[in-house]
Amino acid sequence: MDSALLAAHQIMEYADILATFSADDDGITRAYLTEQHQQAHQQIQAWMEHAGLLSWEDSVGNQWGRKVSPNPTLPTLIIGSHSDTVTNAGKYDGNLGILLAIAALDQLREVALPFHVDVVAFADEEGTRFNTTLIGSSAVAGIYQSQWLTVTDRDGVTMGDAMRKFGLDPANIASAARRASDVSAYLEVHIEQGPVLEANNRAVGVVSGIAGAKRYELNVTGTAGHAGTVPLSLRRDALCGAAEMIQFIEYYAGKHDMVATVGMCHTPQGAVNVIPGKTQFTLDIRSENQDKLEHAAQEIMVALERIAKHRQLQLEVSNIYDAPAVLCSEGLSQLWADAVHRVTGQEALLLPSGAGHDGLAMATLTEVGMLFVRCEKGISHHPAEQVSVDDVSVALQTLVAMIQGLSLKQ
Amino acid sequence: MDSALLAAHQIMEYADILATFSADDDGITRAYLTEQHQQAHQQIQAWMEHAGLLSWEDSVGNQWGRKVSPNPTLPTLIIGSHSDTVTNAGKYDGNLGILLAIAALDQLREVALPFHVDVVAFADEEGTRFNTTLIGSSAVAGIYQSQWLTVTDRDGVTMGDAMRKFGLDPANIASAARRASDVSAYLEVHIEQGPVLEANNRAVGVVSGIAGAKRYELNVTGTAGHAGTVPLSLRRDALCGAAEMIQFIEYYAGKHDMVATVGMCHTPQGAVNVIPGKTQFTLDIRSENQDKLEHAAQEIMVALERIAKHRQLQLEVSNIYDAPAVLCSEGLSQLWADAVHRVTGQEALLLPSGAGHDGLAMATLTEVGMLFVRCEKGISHHPAEQVSVDDVSVALQTLVAMIQGLSLKQ
Repeated sequence: MDSALLAAHQIMEYADILATFSADDDGITRAYLTEQHQQAHQQIQAWMEHAGLLSWEDSVGNQWGRKVSPNPTLPTLIIGSHSDTVTNAGKYDGNLGILLAIAALDQLREVALPFHVDVVAFADEEGTRFNTTLIGSSAVAGIYQSQWLTVTDRDGVTMGDAMRKFGLDPANIASAARRASDVSAYLEVHIEQGPVLEANNRAVGVVSGIAGAKRYELNVTGTAGHAGTVPLSLRRDALCGAAEMIQFIEYYAGKHDMVATVGMCHTPQGAVNVIPGKTQFTLDIRSENQDKLEHAAQEIMVALERIAKHRQLQLEVSNIYDAPAVLCSEGLSQLWADAVHRVTGQEALLLPSGAGHDGLAMATLTEVGMLFVRCEKGISHHPAEQVSVDDVSVALQTLVAMIQGLSLKQ
Repeated sequence: MDSALLAAHQIMEYADILATFSADDDGITRAYLTEQHQQAHQQIQAWMEHAGLLSWEDSVGNQWGRKVSPNPTLPTLIIGSHSDTVTNAGKYDGNLGILLAIAALDQLREVALPFHVDVVAFADEEGTRFNTTLIGSSAVAGIYQSQWLTVTDRDGVTMGDAMRKFGLDPANIASAARRASDVSAYLEVHIEQGPVLEANNRAVGVVSGIAGAKRYELNVTGTAGHAGTVPLSLRRDALCGAAEMIQFIEYYAGKHDMVATVGMCHTPQGAVNVIPGKTQFTLDIRSENQDKLEHAAQEIMVALERIAKHRQLQLEVSNIYDAPAVLCSEGLSQLWADAVHRVTGQEALLLPSGAGHDGLAMATLTEVGMLFVRCEKGISHHPAEQVSVDDVSVALQTLVAMIQGLSLKQ
């Protein structure tokens, strides 16, 4: 067995160990500033130190491990992911990226690099406890919002109190922020959480960007009526209108190679023998290209309005969520692609990330480059989440090659 | 003012009076075997007697008024409608047909007819109290189901006990049934409860048949997934499939000049950022032509199954309701059309009834002929239900002409 595969087996074992630090017995639940957070980070610290890294906890509870370059004035490459999980999670979302970073630096233990490398285990990305996501990376990027300290969990505990109880001082949060001039880039390896790599038979893929999302609630109003007595030509059927809109949304997304999802649809006050007077549905549009996202949202809304008008229906639209897209660095993506090619002999597959990641926050600090690892059937946020040891080996070799590629560029 | 218009004004007044026999203050609620039923029928009896009719209550609580022909061996023409209402109803649904029949016989008081004429106020058509519809006409047609006696209302009172409390003996129900050989036809005038006459600028229209209905619950199952990470090509989106099905149903009904309605649609466990794994919807298909109805149901189901297969979705279909179509008598419809032409000078408009009526039960006993009266905006089962006095006058003259037409045919 080669050293990468051996290390990959160890990563799988480590992921199993991290999975034991869970508030639930079935599935994994590890939230910010909990006992499980502390246990997992103590374990991660031990592994970091075992890999020769200098480890510490920052002021918001992120765990760091540094491979120091001989020249102290050089910038720092940050490689990381998050150690927290959603409720009833799988073992690999976030955690795999931390373990891969530690293992990569273990493999490069004897190699002098022309930059410092910091591995980071972000303590909160999912927002499971406080409904506020990206807490760890926001603090590092210097965009932590002080009002988050007053946000409460399910039991009414504020984030500030939870920090104090954990042994952290909210007054020190700003010290977690890194200076942009000291950081050369942020790299993250993460499971795909989607089915694209599997469908394309690839172990890994290079992330082109993290999709922005726009979400809407749409209300279609027509006229309720007797299902037997009103002929089709005299109907103003809200659901038929909504169905045409949903069909258009699917058609538009397919034509423009993006995703758009109507996740909920219902007919308030509907009955089997009544023409629907109202239909409500939601819309989620995403693209890693912000211009494309804005343009698509605009074009879709114009088309839906046209459908409504044509059917003499009223359409009300509320924009309920807006997250801007973040494009990954082209330079880093090219280096990732070179690394993938070196390891697998294949042209790298470039794919967008439809889900959010710590890179969203880190992009405000530095350039971001991400690699995705295939996960079985695209299942994530579920105990059935699975990656193969062979794919982990490929991901590890690719990350090592990426760090080497960066060192040659320096 | 001519005598028909004068009589029409009186009918409007009488409808206002009947509307006062209501269990609710706003809107009208008059259910079977209630105090309001008794009060309304006492009033109807008085009006029947005032019009020279011999009046009695039958064994299920229907109120009758007979214009006796000099020759006792002649058959009987039955003209009627129902006096009960839905909850929060309007004034004209059912009641208008009773008042028109009494007024028509009042106008024909001095005319000797070659048949007896029985006006009937059916005590239950809507099924408001016991969820069992057409009780009055079913008893007259001899198709009353004895198990209905054990059906309970909201307070747990059985229909049998309610009858006894009302002063009726359930053991005598069969005596309400008329012999087919004694009855020549059943006529009914009813508000349209739809917008077709208004859209065609007609006071009245001849009913071609009472639509049969088939109702279904449909469950579409795909695969839930992350709205950001699963590209369209790899989705099995239950709602997109349902939307295509709903669009097809609308297209099919339009193409085949019938009505089909998806009244309810929802996405169980749906969320704004999750691809719908499940969508449920209902379907109501109607046609006054039973063969067309059966054929349409079959063709639609084949098409929906094809859509499901094409999208790799599972489709489960449950047939939850089946009411057979009843075609009105062609001979009676022709006589109605002649009467409409005589009164209005216009070719009669022939239209189906999408809603159910007492004719559904009476068709098992005798030939059925129906006339519809325009109602404002097609609104019915609502306090805003409205008819114009001019239209009521036209309907009255048409009914008188119809009875005269039948007498000439005899």
